[in-house]
Amino acid sequence: MTLQIYGDHVSGNCLKVKWTATRLGIPFRWIETDVMKAETRTPEFLALNPAGQVPTVVLPDGRPLAQSNAIILHLAEGSDLIPSDPYARARMREWMFWEQYSHEPYIAVARFQRHLAGKAASEIEPRLMERGNGALARLEQQLAATPFLVGEALSLADVALVAYTRVAHEGGFDLDRYPAVKAWVARVEADLAITD
Amino acid sequence: MTLQIYGDHVSGNCLKVKWTATRLGIPFRWIETDVMKAETRTPEFLALNPAGQVPTVVLPDGRPLAQSNAIILHLAEGSDLIPSDPYARARMREWMFWEQYSHEPYIAVARFQRHLAGKAASEIEPRLMERGNGALARLEQQLAATPFLVGEALSLADVALVAYTRVAHEGGFDLDRYPAVKAWVARVEADLAITD
Repeated sequence: MTLQIYGDHVSGNCLKVKWTATRLGIPFRWIETDVMKAETRTPEFLALNPAGQVPTVVLPDGRPLAQSNAIILHLAEGSDLIPSDPYARARMREWMFWEQYSHEPYIAVARFQRHLAGKAASEIEPRLMERGNGALARLEQQLAATPFLVGEALSLADVALVAYTRVAHEGGFDLDRYPAVKAWVARVEADLAITD
Repeated sequence: MTLQIYGDHVSGNCLKVKWTATRLGIPFRWIETDVMKAETRTPEFLALNPAGQVPTVVLPDGRPLAQSNAIILHLAEGSDLIPSDPYARARMREWMFWEQYSHEPYIAVARFQRHLAGKAASEIEPRLMERGNGALARLEQQLAATPFLVGEALSLADVALVAYTRVAHEGGFDLDRYPAVKAWVARVEADLAITD
């Protein structure tokens, strides 16, 4: 059976999985799953993932897996997207947990409210913008020093962090303030052949 | 050099690291770092972790590492706390990412507000309680079926999830509503020899 990716095409978390599978040459079938239409709340979907979240994949052996970063860590095991050096691998995972805790909840949420739910800039909680800019400043500090988040080569840390950073402007963030981040987004998009 | 753990003793995220090191017989030095006194905002601390968060460790070779779940994944590499089966390992990481995204932001935050910041039950945002109870219900569903989160044996998923679940009552959650969770907390505490 082919890998099945249940995903919403507007979700950076879902696109991470698509990009990783594409980069690694893993064939997959994309099953568009609209969060706004509650397609993640059907009995069929909840049987796959009781958390009712996309992305969720069904592996070729029929077993389900959820959480974007857990999925890409599994798909990429043994590939060049995961550093072989244990410390570099640990730093990669540090960035991936940081992404879900200190980046996505601000940047993806502000982007959702502005771009997808149609709120005005004045309606966005100032804390979201403040924390989001804090996250971008932290990326800038790292990317002014190294071309990728974990040194010289692309890793899953870049895949995870580029997902919502590349669309941060849709949440009202000004990437011109973060030139190293902006250059890195272009580098990662080129490497992953992201066009959408 | 001995492993150094910069941690705040009231933080479940920090205790995860202590329990894992203790369980694995890794010697360490605990450096108490008080978040409320902004000890994570000093220039010295920010040099170790620009995100200004505990736990942060300094490994025996002198290199820093942050993010509780990234730290315990690194410390436990090759140990029995990480399943050798690739799918079980992936499910373990799924729970660990879910913990940071869908459990900690509700249960740890409600607990912080009630227990550490002294707020009354009526001052807690209803959404925190609703989402926190949702997370506990999901744990209950799994733990009614298996003794540990990833099947028959303790893994880092249990270490990560027990940290704030065991003190959920301090946030106003009633663990008596989740009997399988309550029994699992006792099992994990016994296995990790948690007494504090």
